[in-house]
Amino acid sequence: MPRAPSTEIPSAGKPHAFAGVFAMLAPQMAALDEFLQAQLESFEPEIRAMVNYCIDTSGKRIRPALVFLSGWKDPRSVSADLVRAAAVVELVHLATLVHDDIMDSADVRRNRRTATREFGPNAAVLLGDALFAHALHLASHFPTTEVCAAVSESTRRVCAGETVQTLRRRSTDLTPADYHRIIDLKTAELFRVSCFLGARLTGSAAGYVEASDRFGRHLGIAYQIYDDLADFFGREDKIGKTLGTDLASGKLTLPLFALMDRLPPFERAALAEEIGGQRPAQPALRLKQMLELGVFDQVECAVRHEVSAARAALAEWPGLPPTQHLLALCDVLLAQVASLRPVG
Amino acid sequence: MPRAPSTEIPSAGKPHAFAGVFAMLAPQMAALDEFLQAQLESFEPEIRAMVNYCIDTSGKRIRPALVFLSGWKDPRSVSADLVRAAAVVELVHLATLVHDDIMDSADVRRNRRTATREFGPNAAVLLGDALFAHALHLASHFPTTEVCAAVSESTRRVCAGETVQTLRRRSTDLTPADYHRIIDLKTAELFRVSCFLGARLTGSAAGYVEASDRFGRHLGIAYQIYDDLADFFGREDKIGKTLGTDLASGKLTLPLFALMDRLPPFERAALAEEIGGQRPAQPALRLKQMLELGVFDQVECAVRHEVSAARAALAEWPGLPPTQHLLALCDVLLAQVASLRPVG
Repeated sequence: MPRAPSTEIPSAGKPHAFAGVFAMLAPQMAALDEFLQAQLESFEPEIRAMVNYCIDTSGKRIRPALVFLSGWKDPRSVSADLVRAAAVVELVHLATLVHDDIMDSADVRRNRRTATREFGPNAAVLLGDALFAHALHLASHFPTTEVCAAVSESTRRVCAGETVQTLRRRSTDLTPADYHRIIDLKTAELFRVSCFLGARLTGSAAGYVEASDRFGRHLGIAYQIYDDLADFFGREDKIGKTLGTDLASGKLTLPLFALMDRLPPFERAALAEEIGGQRPAQPALRLKQMLELGVFDQVECAVRHEVSAARAALAEWPGLPPTQHLLALCDVLLAQVASLRPVG
Repeated sequence: MPRAPSTEIPSAGKPHAFAGVFAMLAPQMAALDEFLQAQLESFEPEIRAMVNYCIDTSGKRIRPALVFLSGWKDPRSVSADLVRAAAVVELVHLATLVHDDIMDSADVRRNRRTATREFGPNAAVLLGDALFAHALHLASHFPTTEVCAAVSESTRRVCAGETVQTLRRRSTDLTPADYHRIIDLKTAELFRVSCFLGARLTGSAAGYVEASDRFGRHLGIAYQIYDDLADFFGREDKIGKTLGTDLASGKLTLPLFALMDRLPPFERAALAEEIGGQRPAQPALRLKQMLELGVFDQVECAVRHEVSAARAALAEWPGLPPTQHLLALCDVLLAQVASLRPVG
């Protein structure tokens, strides 16, 4: 069964990698939970239980955290605008997860049944739509159309990324450039808009808004590459979902590109057939080859490259309250990647 | 195969019932087509062809027509705001059709293959999302957040209506009140917001904006009841889609409620089992019984009731330019219902 193209930090119920940084966001996250719970009443009674199932607090809430951190003032400040914006990006994200799980026929996410498994794919299509619509509705309650415009554009780009990925599944003529474009759209876009909104809604200087936007985009790309690396090098008990499924579902990710480059022609053709679905995937063999051929180092290097770009975006804003916290996310992500490194 | 819960006027390539009224909208509809075509460039290359497939001009464009007619000034006036609003409601409508067809596994709509059949259900989920997102993006380009707020709220309500209908399919404890609530949400809501936007965006008096809104809602309910009647009494060559499918898919509509009421207990139990899926549907028998038991008259009466309410909404605005054209839609709808009446 193919894995959903998740962008979640490993959890399995344990504190996740970003927990240290996110701990400081307890008041903001509590306000977000309260806000999201209050939204339930806006939904028709039949849909309320389904929405509630989705907005439970077991998610990592990375995108809301980016909103809060990029608009950071001080620990006591809980801005209503940021809470609303955080809810908007989280609802858009939840909607994409609900729809992704339909396409992947995924049974489990975050250690519980997916909405498509719980309510059926038909209800899940509409549930995702309702979450999208409500996100945009919340966005329309800001004084100007700027948030609506930013979020609807991001939503379209996220959908475009997922579409291209779906259309190109099992396609072996995908290039690394295609891969970067897909993850830029499907993951980095929502990271980017989260950082943009956090900075923008707190009345920050235009230069910092642009820097925060750029930071979010590079962090998002780095994060997705990490996630794709974890699909091979993670441990299922840590990740809380089945691993090795990108290969099984014919999704060409950076670790597979790196392996392709390193394999002799005969083996490369065999791997291409696994991706294309002409022969059964051999994830154990491919992981063994990745370990032997130094794939990990190359992919880690790609993460570092994006993290450096994210850090560089903030270089001119060293003293701003958000900066140290956003930079801490970079450190945590790199530590998380390092923890995947095979021993010996 | 269940029929999609379409809200389209019968076409089969021939001029549809509203054609007489819509003929006067040629300049506005041409501007809408041009506007929609220009939107294609906003989509990623891989999605563009799919979007183009959906926004072709074979649809009836009833909702755009409601925008144009409720904001009517004179034949030469083509308001950019109305064109944009018409595009917004049409894209929302197209998105719901794309998602409906996935749920119904529908193969044909408007005499051509559905998007889900043409591109696969996975791509169709995302295509619908992209259409929704783009609609909201266009809505965010008005000076204030009002259009965004109205359209996102409508979208959520349309999704809610579809969800309730999906969840209650094959349920025989649905009441006529449930049925009215479902069609109010899934069909009347978008008719309503179309009429609201047309009136509002042309700077009409608040009283007329409210009247137009109310008109649209009642016309939408009447229209859906007509559509449900046509599912039994229409002719396939006229309708351009398979008939009798509401019964086959276990969807309780007004003609079936009316038949239920008139059948003797034993037959009623059998019909309930057909709706519940415990025994095969017998559409020919049920249509015969509907003809014998006067179901047509009762359903036609329900349409008339809603049309009267729609007309009454405009009673205080007899001299306004839109009024005569909106009222003409009522006449056309009633004539369309009458044309379904069985001969003899």
